Amino acid sequence: MWADLKPIGRNATSNGYRRYAWSGADKDCRTWFRAQAESRGLTYEVDRNGNQWAWQGDPQAGDAVVTGSHLDSVPDGGAFDGPLGVVSSFAALDELRRRGAEFTKPLAITNFGDEEGARFGLACVGSRLAAGQLTPEKAHELRDADGISLPQAMEAAGYDHSAIGPDPERLSRIGAFIELHVEQGRALDLTDHPVGIASAIWPHGRWRFDFHGEANHAGTTRLEDRRDPMLTYAETVIAARREAQLTGALATFGKVSVEPNGVNAIPSLVRGWLDSRAADQVTLDQVIAAIEQAAKAEAARAGIDLRITRESFTPVVEFEHALRDELARILSRDIPVLGTGAGHDAGILSASVPTAMLFVRNPTGISHSPAEYAAEDDCVAGVIALADVLEGLACT
Amino acid sequence: MWADLKPIGRNATSNGYRRYAWSGADKDCRTWFRAQAESRGLTYEVDRNGNQWAWQGDPQAGDAVVTGSHLDSVPDGGAFDGPLGVVSSFAALDELRRRGAEFTKPLAITNFGDEEGARFGLACVGSRLAAGQLTPEKAHELRDADGISLPQAMEAAGYDHSAIGPDPERLSRIGAFIELHVEQGRALDLTDHPVGIASAIWPHGRWRFDFHGEANHAGTTRLEDRRDPMLTYAETVIAARREAQLTGALATFGKVSVEPNGVNAIPSLVRGWLDSRAADQVTLDQVIAAIEQAAKAEAARAGIDLRITRESFTPVVEFEHALRDELARILSRDIPVLGTGAGHDAGILSASVPTAMLFVRNPTGISHSPAEYAAEDDCVAGVIALADVLEGLACT
Repeated sequence: MWADLKPIGRNATSNGYRRYAWSGADKDCRTWFRAQAESRGLTYEVDRNGNQWAWQGDPQAGDAVVTGSHLDSVPDGGAFDGPLGVVSSFAALDELRRRGAEFTKPLAITNFGDEEGARFGLACVGSRLAAGQLTPEKAHELRDADGISLPQAMEAAGYDHSAIGPDPERLSRIGAFIELHVEQGRALDLTDHPVGIASAIWPHGRWRFDFHGEANHAGTTRLEDRRDPMLTYAETVIAARREAQLTGALATFGKVSVEPNGVNAIPSLVRGWLDSRAADQVTLDQVIAAIEQAAKAEAARAGIDLRITRESFTPVVEFEHALRDELARILSRDIPVLGTGAGHDAGILSASVPTAMLFVRNPTGISHSPAEYAAEDDCVAGVIALADVLEGLACT
Repeated sequence: MWADLKPIGRNATSNGYRRYAWSGADKDCRTWFRAQAESRGLTYEVDRNGNQWAWQGDPQAGDAVVTGSHLDSVPDGGAFDGPLGVVSSFAALDELRRRGAEFTKPLAITNFGDEEGARFGLACVGSRLAAGQLTPEKAHELRDADGISLPQAMEAAGYDHSAIGPDPERLSRIGAFIELHVEQGRALDLTDHPVGIASAIWPHGRWRFDFHGEANHAGTTRLEDRRDPMLTYAETVIAARREAQLTGALATFGKVSVEPNGVNAIPSLVRGWLDSRAADQVTLDQVIAAIEQAAKAEAARAGIDLRITRESFTPVVEFEHALRDELARILSRDIPVLGTGAGHDAGILSASVPTAMLFVRNPTGISHSPAEYAAEDDCVAGVIALADVLEGLACT
């Protein structure tokens, strides 16, 4: 099952995955999902937002136990972030069938579309649309770097986009959603556990900083005549790190675009994207305010016109305590319970559906990188834990 | 003549020109050049390096007076940098014919290929190849951002690349090369002259700084576990400005590329290109050494693997004093004589051929930008000055 998925969307140079929503690689992943569903006799369907579903039992019966994750990737991402949850879902079902488990509730496995937001700049588009956290109007405005809109991209991939939007009827049929995911830090490794349960997702957001200066010749323009936005961007990158350190938050500029981006041209525009997260809302507000203030002061000093846009924001997500406790009871009381700075479809759905997450140990903590890794034994432990949870929830 | 050239390769959004070597826009410019040559009964030819020539008189006679510039542009460049020299060359010939000038030497107008280096990262490729300052082997290694090699690009544009390389026989037939160019600073404006003569081109070069860190998830990786190359890049940008200020040189990071360039990914690699120039070699060496030292210290502190590559370098060019004095004599003794930080084909050719340059006033000094501008009266003054020079050199 892993072997079929492994080569899809892998870049030969970086060895990383480039499975962008609705791209050719994403389409291949979706074909793989459908084949996995059909080979197990599951009922395959695509919801109004392009998310894939594979059902055992009656989808309409209600109180369904649903598990799954996503198959798309960040640019040059690793093999585990997303796919591990989907592969483990199918493997856990196989394990339950091997055990001869008798299901009393319908079970579904899902692949949520465009979780990483690598293409359109907004994460968890598939689950956000379903949960009503992204309006169809806003979704229609999303465009990728080539100017292709989300509906155009869906259509090019052969998916119907005419009915994208909230799907409360579908969500009302879900009794519990469990997402298994590779851990993206080292908490499990440091406590020597193969599997853990999520407590909460930190509040996080993305802010775009547009530094507008004046394009000019790099070889002839006197320093005092320049309005060079690269300098203000650089000061802001350093300020973000400093403020994150002071507040105990995370703040990262990982994406930048420059116009005209010529070696001998002072840029007219430098666009930097800030990703920031903190354990609580107060800290996040504090770090963002400090970074914005520093950037504005530098911009004013250098004659740069600065515009800051909050592109996305997700408040803190506390996973439902009752379900979390149920998982701990099923798996053993001393399983670690840990918070995370990463966003997930589970975080989006938790506003509408009782939701929990399982994490599988990541020995290096490295994620969103070709070096992302989980040991085979730990992945198997993850599948067994997920099978135990599904059995406890769907077979009692 | 201007009107035909104006719309070619103009980007509707930026209003800037994107005439990259061997692209469709460049091909359209070349078609325009050929039409201008043929409409004046000039002998049109393309040399072994893809540079265009339009001859009046016998190309083989020797001691030719040659004038011209380039038609390609930086990304989102202005209308004047390059084209003003080519258009003025044809206009000056028209003026001399109107005057009934009798030519005693052959005259040629040229369009040198790929002056800006926007596509392959190396400036003045056409003149460098002709002058033996770029070997065919090195030229074959040049690739654009899409991995297309220079020979492939030439072939795609319908040009023969089989014989690219030094062309001493052609250069030996040139008695003087004059390039007219819009000024890229404000020296003429500050002294209130429409036209000036170049004294020298500052030594300048391009250095690529590769900051290798470790890709990781921006939302889950503790600050102390990060090796984030964006921070070291930012420190280097600020150091470059500081050192330029201290030494009186110019140093600019105008181009950057980031991998994987995802909003929620700590970069694995940030590549920044440094353009630096100074009035003399000692100052340039000093500023580069200081920037490299600062970058290395920051890289060592942050666990970043830094590699610095000098991608191109052009030593100081002093234009031939005899020809420069001849121009001053023809045009009037009090014409300003000024240095420039910008590289030109004239700078490359000056190692092989007696070479001079004329500058036309740029009221804002803005260049390499859609806002680049020269007043019509000043452009006409440039044409008349060029015609006077050509008459003085080719008709005596």
